[in-house]
Amino acid sequence: MDISDFNITIVGLGLLGGSMAMALRALGSGNLSGIDCDETAIEFALKSGIIDSGHTDSETALRQADIVIICLYPDQIVKYIKDNLNFFKKGAIITDIAGIKSEIVREISSIEGRNFEFISGHPMAGNEHKGIQHADGEMFRNANYIITPLEENKEESIELISTLMKKIGFKNVIRVTPEKHDRIIALTSHLTHIIAVSLVNSNMLDVDTKLFIGGSFKDASRVALINCELWPQLLISNKENVIEQIELFEENIRSIKAAIRNDDSELLEKQFQQASMRRKEIL
Amino acid sequence: MDISDFNITIVGLGLLGGSMAMALRALGSGNLSGIDCDETAIEFALKSGIIDSGHTDSETALRQADIVIICLYPDQIVKYIKDNLNFFKKGAIITDIAGIKSEIVREISSIEGRNFEFISGHPMAGNEHKGIQHADGEMFRNANYIITPLEENKEESIELISTLMKKIGFKNVIRVTPEKHDRIIALTSHLTHIIAVSLVNSNMLDVDTKLFIGGSFKDASRVALINCELWPQLLISNKENVIEQIELFEENIRSIKAAIRNDDSELLEKQFQQASMRRKEIL
Repeated sequence: MDISDFNITIVGLGLLGGSMAMALRALGSGNLSGIDCDETAIEFALKSGIIDSGHTDSETALRQADIVIICLYPDQIVKYIKDNLNFFKKGAIITDIAGIKSEIVREISSIEGRNFEFISGHPMAGNEHKGIQHADGEMFRNANYIITPLEENKEESIELISTLMKKIGFKNVIRVTPEKHDRIIALTSHLTHIIAVSLVNSNMLDVDTKLFIGGSFKDASRVALINCELWPQLLISNKENVIEQIELFEENIRSIKAAIRNDDSELLEKQFQQASMRRKEIL
Repeated sequence: MDISDFNITIVGLGLLGGSMAMALRALGSGNLSGIDCDETAIEFALKSGIIDSGHTDSETALRQADIVIICLYPDQIVKYIKDNLNFFKKGAIITDIAGIKSEIVREISSIEGRNFEFISGHPMAGNEHKGIQHADGEMFRNANYIITPLEENKEESIELISTLMKKIGFKNVIRVTPEKHDRIIALTSHLTHIIAVSLVNSNMLDVDTKLFIGGSFKDASRVALINCELWPQLLISNKENVIEQIELFEENIRSIKAAIRNDDSELLEKQFQQASMRRKEIL
Protein backbone atom coordinates (compact mmCIF):
# COMPACT_ATOMS: atom_id res chain seq x y z
CA MET A 1 0.00 0.00 0.00
CA ASP A 2 1.44 3.32 -1.06
CA ILE A 3 -0.16 5.98 1.04
CA SER A 4 0.69 8.71 -1.48
CA ASP A 5 -1.87 7.17 -3.85
CA PHE A 6 -4.69 8.46 -1.64
CA ASN A 7 -6.19 11.84 -0.97
CA ILE A 8 -6.88 11.81 2.76
CA THR A 9 -9.07 14.34 4.52
CA ILE A 10 -9.26 14.76 8.26
CA VAL A 11 -12.43 16.34 9.59
CA GLY A 12 -11.86 18.01 12.95
CA LEU A 13 -8.34 19.20 13.76
CA GLY A 14 -8.43 18.65 17.49
CA LEU A 15 -6.23 16.45 19.66
CA LEU A 16 -7.02 13.25 17.79
CA GLY A 17 -7.38 14.76 14.32
CA GLY A 18 -4.13 16.66 14.71
CA SER A 19 -2.36 13.54 15.95
CA MET A 20 -3.72 11.52 13.00
CA ALA A 21 -2.43 14.20 10.62
CA MET A 22 1.00 14.16 12.25
CA ALA A 23 1.21 10.37 12.14
CA LEU A 24 0.13 10.32 8.48
CA ARG A 25 2.55 13.08 7.57
CA ALA A 26 5.37 11.12 9.20
CA LEU A 27 4.52 8.27 6.79
CA GLY A 28 5.04 10.67 3.91
CA SER A 29 1.36 10.78 2.98
CA GLY A 30 0.67 12.55 -0.28
CA ASN A 31 -2.33 14.81 -0.33
CA LEU A 32 -3.56 15.48 3.19
CA SER A 33 -6.25 18.06 3.82
CA GLY A 34 -7.92 19.22 7.01
CA ILE A 35 -11.39 20.58 7.67
CA ASP A 36 -12.27 22.52 10.80
CA CYS A 37 -14.70 25.32 11.65
CA ASP A 38 -11.96 26.91 13.76
CA GLU A 39 -9.53 28.87 11.61
CA THR A 40 -6.84 28.95 14.28
CA ALA A 41 -6.73 25.13 14.29
CA ILE A 42 -6.24 25.15 10.52
CA GLU A 43 -3.54 27.80 10.76
CA PHE A 44 -1.77 25.76 13.43
CA ALA A 45 -1.90 22.64 11.25
CA LEU A 46 -0.67 24.49 8.17
CA LYS A 47 2.16 26.20 10.03
CA SER A 48 3.21 22.86 11.56
CA GLY A 49 3.28 21.45 8.05
CA ILE A 50 1.05 18.52 8.95
CA ILE A 51 -1.60 19.22 6.30
CA ASP A 52 -1.28 20.35 2.71
CA SER A 53 -4.48 22.36 2.67
CA GLY A 54 -7.02 23.53 5.23
CA HIS A 55 -10.69 24.34 4.78
CA THR A 56 -13.47 25.79 6.90
CA ASP A 57 -16.04 24.51 4.41
CA SER A 58 -16.23 20.85 3.58
CA GLU A 59 -17.16 20.56 -0.08
CA THR A 60 -13.84 21.10 -1.85
CA ALA A 61 -11.84 18.69 0.29
CA LEU A 62 -14.51 15.99 0.53
CA ARG A 63 -15.08 15.87 -3.24
CA GLN A 64 -11.45 14.83 -3.71
CA ALA A 65 -11.00 12.59 -0.67
CA ASP A 66 -10.47 8.84 -1.09
CA ILE A 67 -10.31 8.40 2.66
CA VAL A 68 -12.09 10.65 5.17
CA ILE A 69 -11.20 10.36 8.86
CA ILE A 70 -13.86 12.08 10.94
CA CYS A 71 -12.32 13.18 14.22
CA LEU A 72 -15.34 14.91 15.73
CA TYR A 73 -17.17 14.27 19.00
CA PRO A 74 -19.54 11.29 18.82
CA ASP A 75 -22.71 13.38 18.72
CA GLN A 76 -21.45 15.38 15.73
CA ILE A 77 -20.42 12.51 13.47
CA VAL A 78 -23.79 11.40 12.13
CA LYS A 79 -24.91 15.00 11.67
CA TYR A 80 -21.71 15.84 9.80
CA ILE A 81 -22.12 12.93 7.42
CA LYS A 82 -25.79 13.71 6.79
CA ASP A 83 -25.10 17.41 6.22
CA ASN A 84 -22.37 16.65 3.70
CA LEU A 85 -23.90 13.59 2.07
CA ASN A 86 -23.66 14.94 -1.46
CA PHE A 87 -20.04 15.98 -1.22
CA PHE A 88 -18.43 12.59 -0.60
CA LYS A 89 -16.53 11.11 -3.54
CA LYS A 90 -18.11 7.98 -4.93
CA GLY A 91 -16.57 4.91 -3.31
CA ALA A 92 -14.72 6.93 -0.69
CA ILE A 93 -13.96 5.23 2.62
CA ILE A 94 -15.23 7.15 5.62
CA THR A 95 -14.01 6.26 9.08
CA ASP A 96 -14.31 7.88 12.50
CA ILE A 97 -12.66 7.76 15.91
CA ALA A 98 -15.65 7.64 18.25
CA GLY A 99 -15.36 5.68 21.49
CA ILE A 100 -18.88 4.28 21.03
CA LYS A 101 -20.07 2.42 18.01
CA SER A 102 -23.56 0.86 17.95
CA GLU A 103 -25.60 4.04 17.62
CA ILE A 104 -23.32 5.69 15.07
CA VAL A 105 -23.02 2.58 12.91
CA ARG A 106 -26.78 2.01 13.04
CA GLU A 107 -27.58 5.57 12.02
CA ILE A 108 -25.03 5.79 9.23
CA SER A 109 -25.97 2.44 7.78
CA SER A 110 -29.61 3.51 7.61
CA ILE A 111 -28.80 6.51 5.40
CA GLU A 112 -30.26 5.81 1.98
CA GLY A 113 -28.39 6.51 -1.20
CA ARG A 114 -24.94 6.44 0.38
CA ASN A 115 -22.23 6.26 -2.26
CA PHE A 116 -19.37 5.74 0.25
CA GLU A 117 -18.24 2.95 2.54
CA PHE A 118 -18.44 3.64 6.27
CA ILE A 119 -15.94 1.64 8.33
CA SER A 120 -16.10 2.73 11.92
CA GLY A 121 -12.95 2.68 14.04
CA HIS A 122 -11.88 3.36 17.60
CA PRO A 123 -8.25 4.27 18.20
CA MET A 124 -7.68 3.36 21.85
CA ALA A 125 -5.32 6.23 22.52
CA GLY A 126 -5.51 9.76 23.78
CA ASN A 127 -4.55 11.93 26.65
CA GLU A 128 -6.23 14.35 29.00
CA HIS A 129 -5.75 17.40 26.76
CA LYS A 130 -7.91 19.07 24.17
CA GLY A 131 -6.87 20.80 20.97
CA ILE A 132 -4.38 20.41 18.16
CA GLN A 133 -1.65 22.17 20.14
CA HIS A 134 -1.39 18.96 22.22
CA ALA A 135 -1.39 16.65 19.18
CA ASP A 136 1.25 13.96 19.11
CA GLY A 137 1.96 11.77 16.11
CA GLU A 138 3.39 9.09 18.38
CA MET A 139 0.16 8.81 20.38
CA PHE A 140 -0.93 5.67 18.57
CA ARG A 141 2.34 3.75 18.91
CA ASN A 142 1.61 0.22 20.23
CA ALA A 143 -2.01 1.06 21.09
CA ASN A 144 -5.01 -1.04 20.06
CA TYR A 145 -7.29 -0.04 17.20
CA ILE A 146 -10.77 -1.48 17.14
CA ILE A 147 -12.65 -1.71 13.87
CA THR A 148 -16.36 -2.44 13.53
CA PRO A 149 -17.07 -2.96 9.83
CA LEU A 150 -20.48 -3.49 8.29
CA GLU A 151 -21.36 -6.68 6.39
CA GLU A 152 -21.61 -4.60 3.25
CA ASN A 153 -18.00 -3.34 3.50
CA LYS A 154 -15.60 -4.69 0.87
CA GLU A 155 -12.86 -6.80 2.35
CA GLU A 156 -10.25 -4.74 0.51
CA SER A 157 -11.59 -1.53 2.06
CA ILE A 158 -11.43 -3.03 5.55
CA GLU A 159 -7.88 -4.16 4.81
CA LEU A 160 -6.98 -0.69 3.59
CA ILE A 161 -8.06 0.97 6.85
CA SER A 162 -6.42 -1.80 8.91
CA THR A 163 -3.13 -1.43 7.07
CA LEU A 164 -3.24 2.36 7.33
CA MET A 165 -3.77 2.16 11.09
CA LYS A 166 -0.91 -0.30 11.54
CA LYS A 167 1.35 1.99 9.55
CA ILE A 168 0.34 4.85 11.82
CA GLY A 169 1.65 2.83 14.76
CA PHE A 170 -1.19 0.73 16.16
CA LYS A 171 -0.08 -2.68 17.38
CA ASN A 172 -3.33 -4.63 17.09
CA VAL A 173 -6.30 -4.08 14.82
CA ILE A 174 -9.24 -5.90 16.35
CA ARG A 175 -12.39 -6.56 14.36
CA VAL A 176 -15.67 -6.87 16.28
CA THR A 177 -19.32 -5.96 15.95
CA PRO A 178 -20.33 -2.49 17.16
CA GLU A 179 -22.44 -4.11 19.89
CA LYS A 180 -19.56 -6.16 21.24
CA HIS A 181 -17.29 -3.13 21.11
CA ASP A 182 -19.67 -1.08 23.21
CA ARG A 183 -20.19 -3.82 25.77
CA ILE A 184 -16.48 -4.45 26.34
CA ILE A 185 -15.45 -0.82 26.23
CA ALA A 186 -17.98 -0.14 28.99
CA LEU A 187 -15.71 -2.21 31.24
CA THR A 188 -12.24 -1.45 29.97
CA SER A 189 -12.64 2.28 29.48
CA HIS A 190 -15.97 3.74 30.57
CA LEU A 191 -16.00 2.13 34.03
CA THR A 192 -12.38 3.09 34.72
CA HIS A 193 -13.14 6.73 34.02
CA ILE A 194 -16.18 6.63 36.30
CA ILE A 195 -14.04 5.08 39.04
CA ALA A 196 -11.35 7.76 38.71
CA VAL A 197 -13.93 10.55 38.92
CA SER A 198 -15.71 8.97 41.89
CA LEU A 199 -12.41 8.53 43.68
CA VAL A 200 -11.13 12.09 43.44
CA ASN A 201 -14.57 13.52 44.14
CA SER A 202 -14.47 11.98 47.62
CA ASN A 203 -15.39 14.53 50.28
CA MET A 204 -12.50 13.23 52.34
CA LEU A 205 -9.95 14.52 49.87
CA ASP A 206 -8.61 17.79 51.23
CA VAL A 207 -5.37 19.68 51.65
CA ASP A 208 -4.23 17.40 54.47
CA THR A 209 -5.03 14.27 52.57
CA LYS A 210 -2.91 15.10 49.58
CA LEU A 211 0.37 14.43 51.32
CA PHE A 212 -0.79 10.85 51.88
CA ILE A 213 -1.16 10.12 48.22
CA GLY A 214 1.09 7.43 46.82
CA GLY A 215 1.33 5.63 43.52
CA SER A 216 -1.88 3.66 43.80
CA PHE A 217 -4.08 6.75 44.17
CA LYS A 218 -2.25 8.64 41.46
CA ASP A 219 -2.66 5.77 39.01
CA ALA A 220 -6.28 5.05 39.86
CA SER A 221 -7.22 8.71 39.46
CA ARG A 222 -5.13 9.65 36.42
CA VAL A 223 -8.05 9.72 34.00
CA ALA A 224 -10.13 11.90 36.34
CA LEU A 225 -8.48 14.68 34.34
CA ILE A 226 -11.23 14.12 31.84
CA ASN A 227 -12.67 15.82 28.77
CA CYS A 228 -15.87 17.17 30.35
CA GLU A 229 -17.76 17.70 27.10
CA LEU A 230 -16.92 14.39 25.48
CA TRP A 231 -17.47 11.99 28.34
CA PRO A 232 -21.11 12.63 29.24
CA GLN A 233 -21.90 11.86 25.57
CA LEU A 234 -19.93 8.62 25.60
CA LEU A 235 -21.45 7.36 28.83
CA ILE A 236 -25.04 8.31 28.07
CA SER A 237 -25.00 6.80 24.59
CA ASN A 238 -23.58 3.58 26.02
CA LYS A 239 -25.95 3.72 28.97
CA GLU A 240 -27.11 0.11 29.24
CA ASN A 241 -23.66 -1.40 28.98
CA VAL A 242 -22.14 1.14 31.33
CA ILE A 243 -24.78 0.57 33.99
CA GLU A 244 -24.29 -3.20 33.67
CA GLN A 245 -20.55 -2.83 34.22
CA ILE A 246 -20.98 -0.41 37.12
CA GLU A 247 -23.29 -2.91 38.78
CA LEU A 248 -20.91 -5.84 38.35
CA PHE A 249 -18.19 -3.68 39.85
CA GLU A 250 -20.46 -2.60 42.72
CA GLU A 251 -21.12 -6.26 43.50
CA ASN A 252 -17.39 -6.99 43.73
CA ILE A 253 -16.84 -3.97 45.98
CA ARG A 254 -19.73 -5.08 48.20
CA SER A 255 -18.34 -8.58 48.55
CA ILE A 256 -14.95 -7.21 49.64
CA LYS A 257 -16.68 -4.86 52.06
CA ALA A 258 -18.61 -7.76 53.58
CA ALA A 259 -15.44 -9.83 53.93
CA ILE A 260 -13.71 -6.96 55.75
CA ARG A 261 -16.71 -6.45 58.01
CA ASN A 262 -16.76 -10.18 58.86
CA ASP A 263 -12.98 -10.41 59.44
CA ASP A 264 -12.97 -12.96 56.65
CA SER A 265 -9.29 -12.81 55.75
CA GLU A 266 -9.54 -16.14 53.98
CA LEU A 267 -12.08 -14.82 51.48
CA LEU A 268 -10.05 -11.65 51.01
CA GLU A 269 -6.92 -13.68 50.37
CA LYS A 270 -8.78 -15.74 47.79
CA GLN A 271 -10.05 -12.66 45.99
CA PHE A 272 -6.61 -11.05 46.08
CA GLN A 273 -5.01 -14.17 44.66
CA GLN A 274 -7.48 -14.21 41.80
CA ALA A 275 -6.90 -10.50 41.21
CA SER A 276 -3.10 -10.90 41.21
CA MET A 277 -3.30 -13.73 38.74
CA ARG A 278 -5.62 -11.81 36.43
CA ARG A 279 -3.54 -8.66 36.65
CA LYS A 280 -0.42 -10.61 35.64
CA GLU A 281 -2.23 -11.91 32.58
CA ILE A 282 -3.10 -8.39 31.47
CA LEU A 283 0.47 -7.10 31.55
CA MET B 1 23.67 13.92 61.76
CA ASP B 2 26.38 11.42 61.04
CA ILE B 3 24.76 8.11 60.31
CA SER B 4 27.93 6.19 61.12
CA ASP B 5 27.47 7.16 64.80
CA PHE B 6 24.55 4.75 65.07
CA ASN B 7 24.21 1.01 65.21
CA ILE B 8 21.15 0.28 63.09
CA THR B 9 19.33 -3.04 63.07
CA ILE B 10 16.72 -4.04 60.52
CA VAL B 11 14.29 -6.71 61.63
CA GLY B 12 12.84 -8.57 58.67
CA LEU B 13 14.88 -8.69 55.47
CA GLY B 14 12.03 -8.74 52.99
CA LEU B 15 11.22 -6.29 50.21
CA LEU B 16 11.00 -3.27 52.51
CA GLY B 17 13.68 -4.30 54.99
CA GLY B 18 16.08 -5.11 52.18
CA SER B 19 15.34 -1.80 50.46
CA MET B 20 15.89 0.08 53.74
CA ALA B 21 19.24 -1.68 54.17
CA MET B 22 20.26 -0.78 50.62
CA ALA B 23 19.26 2.85 51.03
CA LEU B 24 21.12 3.08 54.36
CA ARG B 25 24.18 1.39 52.92
CA ALA B 26 24.21 3.89 50.06
CA LEU B 27 24.45 6.62 52.70
CA GLY B 28 27.57 4.96 54.05
CA SER B 29 25.94 3.82 57.27
CA GLY B 30 28.34 2.41 59.82
CA ASN B 31 27.19 -0.65 61.64
CA LEU B 32 24.15 -2.17 59.97
CA SER B 33 22.80 -5.53 61.09
CA GLY B 34 19.89 -7.62 59.88
CA ILE B 35 17.65 -10.08 61.68
CA ASP B 36 15.52 -12.64 59.87
CA CYS B 37 14.27 -16.15 60.62
CA ASP B 38 15.06 -17.06 57.00
CA GLU B 39 18.74 -17.82 56.54
CA THR B 40 18.60 -17.43 52.77
CA ALA B 41 17.46 -13.82 53.18
CA ILE B 42 20.40 -13.15 55.48
CA GLU B 43 22.81 -14.79 53.05
CA PHE B 44 21.42 -12.71 50.22
CA ALA B 45 21.85 -9.51 52.24
CA LEU B 46 25.39 -10.41 53.29
CA LYS B 47 26.43 -11.39 49.77
CA SER B 48 24.96 -8.15 48.40
CA GLY B 49 27.01 -6.30 50.98
CA ILE B 50 24.01 -4.38 52.30
CA ILE B 51 24.40 -5.49 55.94
CA ASP B 52 27.51 -5.96 58.06
CA SER B 53 26.13 -8.85 60.08
CA GLY B 54 23.09 -11.09 59.92
CA HIS B 55 21.32 -12.98 62.72
CA THR B 56 18.54 -15.50 63.00
CA ASP B 57 18.25 -14.78 66.70
CA SER B 58 17.52 -11.27 67.91
CA GLU B 59 19.41 -10.79 71.16
CA THR B 60 22.94 -9.97 69.98
CA ALA B 61 21.95 -7.39 67.39
CA LEU B 62 19.20 -5.74 69.46
CA ARG B 63 21.46 -5.26 72.49
CA GLN B 64 23.76 -3.05 70.41
CA ALA B 65 21.19 -1.26 68.27
CA ASP B 66 20.62 2.47 68.69
CA ILE B 67 17.94 2.41 66.01
CA VAL B 68 15.77 -0.63 65.22
CA ILE B 69 13.66 -0.62 62.06
CA ILE B 70 11.06 -3.37 62.25
CA CYS B 71 10.09 -4.38 58.73
CA LEU B 72 7.65 -7.17 59.56
CA TYR B 73 3.99 -7.62 58.63
CA PRO B 74 1.64 -5.55 60.82
CA ASP B 75 0.37 -8.51 62.85
CA GLN B 76 3.92 -9.55 63.79
CA ILE B 77 5.24 -6.21 65.02
CA VAL B 78 3.67 -6.05 68.49
CA LYS B 79 4.46 -9.70 69.12
CA TYR B 80 8.06 -9.22 68.08
CA ILE B 81 8.53 -6.27 70.41
CA LYS B 82 6.90 -8.07 73.33
CA ASP B 83 8.93 -11.24 72.75
CA ASN B 84 12.19 -9.30 72.70
CA LEU B 85 11.37 -6.68 75.31
CA ASN B 86 14.45 -7.34 77.43
CA PHE B 87 16.90 -7.22 74.56
CA PHE B 88 16.42 -3.62 73.45
CA LYS B 89 19.22 -1.22 74.36
CA LYS B 90 18.16 1.42 76.88
CA GLY B 91 17.03 4.56 75.06
CA ALA B 92 17.00 2.87 71.64
CA ILE B 93 14.62 4.22 69.04
CA ILE B 94 12.33 1.58 67.58
CA THR B 95 10.40 2.31 64.42
CA ASP B 96 8.32 0.22 62.02
CA ILE B 97 6.94 0.36 58.50
CA ALA B 98 3.36 -0.81 58.99
CA GLY B 99 0.65 0.65 56.78
CA ILE B 100 -1.73 0.90 59.75
CA LYS B 101 -0.96 2.70 62.95
CA SER B 102 -3.66 3.07 65.65
CA GLU B 103 -3.70 -0.50 66.89
CA ILE B 104 0.07 -0.96 66.85
CA VAL B 105 0.78 2.35 68.55
CA ARG B 106 -1.89 1.69 71.20
CA GLU B 107 -0.54 -1.75 72.00
CA ILE B 108 3.11 -0.77 72.11
CA SER B 109 2.46 2.30 74.24
CA SER B 110 0.60 0.17 76.78
CA ILE B 111 3.63 -2.06 77.37
CA GLU B 112 4.89 -1.36 80.86
CA GLY B 113 8.55 -1.00 81.69
CA ARG B 114 9.61 -0.07 78.13
CA ASN B 115 13.12 1.34 78.13
CA PHE B 116 13.02 2.37 74.44
CA GLU B 117 11.22 5.01 72.40
CA PHE B 118 8.70 3.77 69.86
CA ILE B 119 8.21 6.14 66.92
CA SER B 120 5.94 4.55 64.38
CA GLY B 121 6.44 5.30 60.69
CA HIS B 122 4.86 4.47 57.36
CA PRO B 123 7.04 4.70 54.25
CA MET B 124 4.56 5.22 51.42
CA ALA B 125 6.49 3.18 48.93
CA GLY B 126 6.64 -0.37 47.71
CA ASN B 127 5.93 -2.51 44.74
CA GLU B 128 4.01 -5.66 43.98
CA HIS B 129 6.86 -8.04 44.78
CA LYS B 130 7.82 -9.92 47.91
CA GLY B 131 11.26 -10.76 49.18
CA ILE B 132 14.71 -9.19 49.44
CA GLN B 133 15.63 -10.27 45.91
CA HIS B 134 13.31 -7.47 44.70
CA ALA B 135 14.70 -4.88 47.13
CA ASP B 136 15.55 -1.50 45.68
CA GLY B 137 17.40 1.21 47.57
CA GLU B 138 15.86 3.85 45.32
CA MET B 139 12.31 2.80 46.23
CA PHE B 140 11.87 5.67 48.68
CA ARG B 141 13.12 8.45 46.40
CA ASN B 142 10.59 11.33 46.47
CA ALA B 143 7.94 9.28 48.28
CA ASN B 144 6.09 10.45 51.38
CA TYR B 145 6.97 9.21 54.86
CA ILE B 146 4.33 9.44 57.54
CA ILE B 147 5.35 9.52 61.17
CA THR B 148 2.98 9.09 64.10
CA PRO B 149 4.96 9.87 67.26
CA LEU B 150 3.68 9.52 70.81
CA GLU B 151 3.43 12.49 73.16
CA GLU B 152 6.17 10.93 75.26
CA ASN B 153 8.68 10.85 72.39
CA LYS B 154 11.60 13.25 72.70
CA GLU B 155 11.64 15.89 70.01
CA GLU B 156 15.25 15.04 69.20
CA SER B 157 14.34 11.39 68.63
CA ILE B 158 11.52 12.34 66.29
CA GLU B 159 13.93 14.63 64.46
CA LEU B 160 16.47 11.83 64.23
CA ILE B 161 14.05 9.48 62.49
CA SER B 162 12.75 12.30 60.26
CA THR B 163 16.26 13.25 59.18
CA LEU B 164 17.23 9.65 58.58
CA MET B 165 14.18 9.11 56.35
CA LYS B 166 14.90 12.26 54.36
CA LYS B 167 18.46 11.11 53.86
CA ILE B 168 17.15 7.79 52.61
CA GLY B 169 15.29 9.68 49.90
CA PHE B 170 11.81 10.55 51.20
CA LYS B 171 10.58 13.93 50.01
CA ASN B 172 8.10 14.77 52.77
CA VAL B 173 7.97 13.63 56.36
CA ILE B 174 4.44 14.20 57.60
CA ARG B 175 3.62 14.08 61.29
CA VAL B 176 0.07 13.07 62.30
CA THR B 177 -1.73 11.09 64.97
CA PRO B 178 -2.11 7.35 64.37
CA GLU B 179 -5.89 7.81 64.16
CA LYS B 180 -5.66 10.46 61.47
CA HIS B 181 -3.14 8.35 59.57
CA ASP B 182 -5.47 5.37 59.49
CA ARG B 183 -8.48 7.43 58.42
CA ILE B 184 -6.70 9.11 55.52
CA ILE B 185 -4.81 6.04 54.38
CA ALA B 186 -8.13 4.21 54.12
CA LEU B 187 -8.92 6.58 51.25
CA THR B 188 -5.57 7.14 49.59
CA SER B 189 -4.28 3.57 49.71
CA HIS B 190 -6.71 0.99 51.07
CA LEU B 191 -9.65 2.03 48.89
CA THR B 192 -7.52 2.19 45.75
CA HIS B 193 -6.35 -1.40 46.28
CA ILE B 194 -9.93 -2.57 46.82
CA ILE B 195 -10.95 -0.81 43.61
CA ALA B 196 -8.16 -2.43 41.60
CA VAL B 197 -9.06 -5.89 42.86
CA SER B 198 -12.78 -5.36 42.25
CA LEU B 199 -12.06 -4.14 38.73
CA VAL B 200 -9.93 -7.07 37.53
CA ASN B 201 -12.19 -9.58 39.25
CA SER B 202 -15.03 -8.57 36.93
CA ASN B 203 -16.65 -11.60 35.34
CA MET B 204 -16.66 -9.75 32.05
CA LEU B 205 -12.87 -9.82 31.84
CA ASP B 206 -11.92 -12.64 29.50
CA VAL B 207 -9.56 -13.40 26.68
CA ASP B 208 -11.54 -11.30 24.22
CA THR B 209 -11.71 -8.36 26.55
CA LYS B 210 -7.99 -8.06 27.04
CA LEU B 211 -7.33 -6.62 23.61
CA PHE B 212 -9.60 -3.72 24.52
CA ILE B 213 -7.51 -2.67 27.46
CA GLY B 214 -5.93 0.74 27.25
CA GLY B 215 -4.03 2.97 29.64
CA SER B 216 -6.95 3.74 31.94
CA PHE B 217 -7.63 0.10 32.80
CA LYS B 218 -3.95 -0.71 33.17
CA ASP B 219 -3.43 2.17 35.57
CA ALA B 220 -6.57 1.57 37.61
CA SER B 221 -5.72 -2.11 38.04
CA ARG B 222 -1.97 -1.90 38.59
CA VAL B 223 -2.12 -2.57 42.34
CA ALA B 224 -4.39 -5.59 41.85
CA LEU B 225 -1.05 -7.41 41.72
CA ILE B 226 -1.24 -7.41 45.49
CA ASN B 227 0.52 -9.04 48.42
CA CYS B 228 -2.20 -11.54 49.35
CA GLU B 229 -0.98 -12.19 52.90
CA LEU B 230 -0.37 -8.59 53.90
CA TRP B 231 -3.49 -6.92 52.59
CA PRO B 232 -6.23 -8.81 54.44
CA GLN B 233 -4.42 -7.81 57.66
CA LEU B 234 -4.21 -4.15 56.68
CA LEU B 235 -7.84 -3.90 55.66
CA ILE B 236 -9.31 -5.81 58.57
CA SER B 237 -7.35 -3.90 61.19
CA ASN B 238 -8.46 -0.64 59.63
CA LYS B 239 -11.99 -1.93 59.18
CA GLU B 240 -14.07 1.06 60.30
CA ASN B 241 -12.15 3.60 58.25
CA VAL B 242 -12.02 1.37 55.22
CA ILE B 243 -15.75 0.71 55.28
CA GLU B 244 -16.42 4.45 55.66
CA GLN B 245 -14.30 5.21 52.59
CA ILE B 246 -15.82 2.40 50.55
CA GLU B 247 -19.26 3.79 51.32
CA LEU B 248 -18.36 7.36 50.37
CA PHE B 249 -16.99 5.99 47.12
CA GLU B 250 -20.09 3.87 46.54
CA GLU B 251 -22.22 7.00 46.96
CA ASN B 252 -20.23 8.82 44.29
CA ILE B 253 -20.49 5.86 41.92
CA ARG B 254 -24.24 5.69 42.52
CA SER B 255 -24.69 9.37 41.79
CA ILE B 256 -22.85 9.01 38.46
CA LYS B 257 -24.91 5.92 37.65
CA ALA B 258 -28.13 7.84 38.33
CA ALA B 259 -26.99 10.74 36.16
CA ILE B 260 -26.25 8.34 33.28
CA ARG B 261 -29.60 6.61 33.73
CA ASN B 262 -31.40 9.99 33.67
CA ASP B 263 -29.45 11.32 30.66
CA ASP B 264 -28.32 14.11 32.96
CA SER B 265 -25.27 15.25 31.00
CA GLU B 266 -25.26 18.54 32.88
CA LEU B 267 -24.71 16.82 36.22
CA LEU B 268 -22.08 14.55 34.70
CA GLU B 269 -20.27 17.54 33.24
CA LYS B 270 -20.31 19.24 36.63
CA GLN B 271 -18.89 16.17 38.35
CA PHE B 272 -16.24 15.75 35.67
CA GLN B 273 -15.22 19.38 35.96
CA GLN B 274 -14.80 19.00 39.71
CA ALA B 275 -12.83 15.80 39.21
CA SER B 276 -10.55 17.37 36.61
CA MET B 277 -9.84 20.31 38.87
CA ARG B 278 -9.09 18.08 41.84
CA ARG B 279 -6.91 15.75 39.80
CA LYS B 280 -4.85 18.71 38.59
CA GLU B 281 -4.27 19.77 42.19
CA ILE B 282 -2.96 16.32 43.09
CA LEU B 283 -0.32 16.23 40.36
